Amino acid sequence: MHFTSAQRRDDGVLEREFTLGEIPGTLWTPESATPAPLILMAHNNGLPKREPRLVARARTTAAYGYAVAAIDAAACGDRPRSAADERTRADFRRAMQAGEAVDEVFESFIGPLVEKAAPDWRTTLDALLALPETGGPVGYSGWTAVGIRLAAIEPRIAAAGFFAGGYVPRAQREEARRITIPLLMLLQWDDEGNPRQRALDLFDAFGSREKTLHANMGGHTGTPWFELDDGNRFFDRHLR
Amino acid sequence: MHFTSAQRRDDGVLEREFTLGEIPGTLWTPESATPAPLILMAHNNGLPKREPRLVARARTTAAYGYAVAAIDAAACGDRPRSAADERTRADFRRAMQAGEAVDEVFESFIGPLVEKAAPDWRTTLDALLALPETGGPVGYSGWTAVGIRLAAIEPRIAAAGFFAGGYVPRAQREEARRITIPLLMLLQWDDEGNPRQRALDLFDAFGSREKTLHANMGGHTGTPWFELDDGNRFFDRHLR
Repeated sequence: MHFTSAQRRDDGVLEREFTLGEIPGTLWTPESATPAPLILMAHNNGLPKREPRLVARARTTAAYGYAVAAIDAAACGDRPRSAADERTRADFRRAMQAGEAVDEVFESFIGPLVEKAAPDWRTTLDALLALPETGGPVGYSGWTAVGIRLAAIEPRIAAAGFFAGGYVPRAQREEARRITIPLLMLLQWDDEGNPRQRALDLFDAFGSREKTLHANMGGHTGTPWFELDDGNRFFDRHLR
Repeated sequence: MHFTSAQRRDDGVLEREFTLGEIPGTLWTPESATPAPLILMAHNNGLPKREPRLVARARTTAAYGYAVAAIDAAACGDRPRSAADERTRADFRRAMQAGEAVDEVFESFIGPLVEKAAPDWRTTLDALLALPETGGPVGYSGWTAVGIRLAAIEPRIAAAGFFAGGYVPRAQREEARRITIPLLMLLQWDDEGNPRQRALDLFDAFGSREKTLHANMGGHTGTPWFELDDGNRFFDRHLR
């Protein structure tokens, strides 16, 4: 693991870019010198880790007291993609924007992406937990499908916050029943890209005894700011 | 308004019984001497204000910093009921316990109860806001149907937390569309007495631009303790 840049922000958060083999990542750590519980933060459907909404969420969470990491997993974000991958991605965007049925193209685009992303996240987790400034137990926040995959195979993940569970590949809809860690699931009531009933069905399917759904009004990017605070307190209950 | 007893608790909360004409009530106020925003707390379906779960909720909320009031409204709690009222109430309990369809008996039992309760709550609100230790804006917490009725007719109510919206009389299901204040609605996912889909439909129906649903696992009495904290913070956003 190589840190390639470091910047101390006004709120005391240290923001460092790193590479881990082919994986580019960012680590945000709070000012405090004691090891902070680690939260892995993944953006839905392979959007880049440099995307401003993810960065804002990561910075706020680090300022609150967590170590936060985001990566561009294989074929995600700024990582290279095959011509076939690019075509499926374009097909998916086109179908979504046209309001067409996207199940099959979603499955062929996101299904393999989740399979490829999970090992990169585990590699990153190994490296991050070896640092003195991060500790366990580990939380996960964001992209529902990758979170389900990781929670199913990675016992170090102790609690997870999921966002926008309307479209999730078949494999992860099945895996949801096997998830037993505490969950906080966010649902935007009128999320144009995430059918409400499917998200409710997914919430119902999780095997966790402690799972909470927070639904708010508005579209995909309209999650109210106070949900960030609620998320931090959710992690406080399970990672502290 | 006559205070008939006063008790200072270990957490500093002053707990006072009062009567206001025929209305018996309890007022919990925090230790601080400055006027605290008032929260009206009503128990579902006319259960008594002395019920331990309501009392615990009121005390915690007062210790947090709010003035909290509960009353036994007309025909609720320990107030006298007509023989006809007692029969409908018994019919309702029997139908619920037997798992029978309760819509009609619910309507004939709860519909009139809500109509009779609302004026008593408004009378109480007038009296409470005249006290130096309480202030506005006012919050409401608890019984969904009475809360809808009050929010529809009482402009002093600025935010409301509703619980268990599975069965709500027709009149209040209609009124829900006219409610525009910020709402926090709690749903127990497997509440035996409150069909989930009806609660979701009610949440959808509210006219409020800011409304949040918190759903948790378990039955009617299983709401996790952290929802009390979340409720306090919801009121902080709108009453402070």
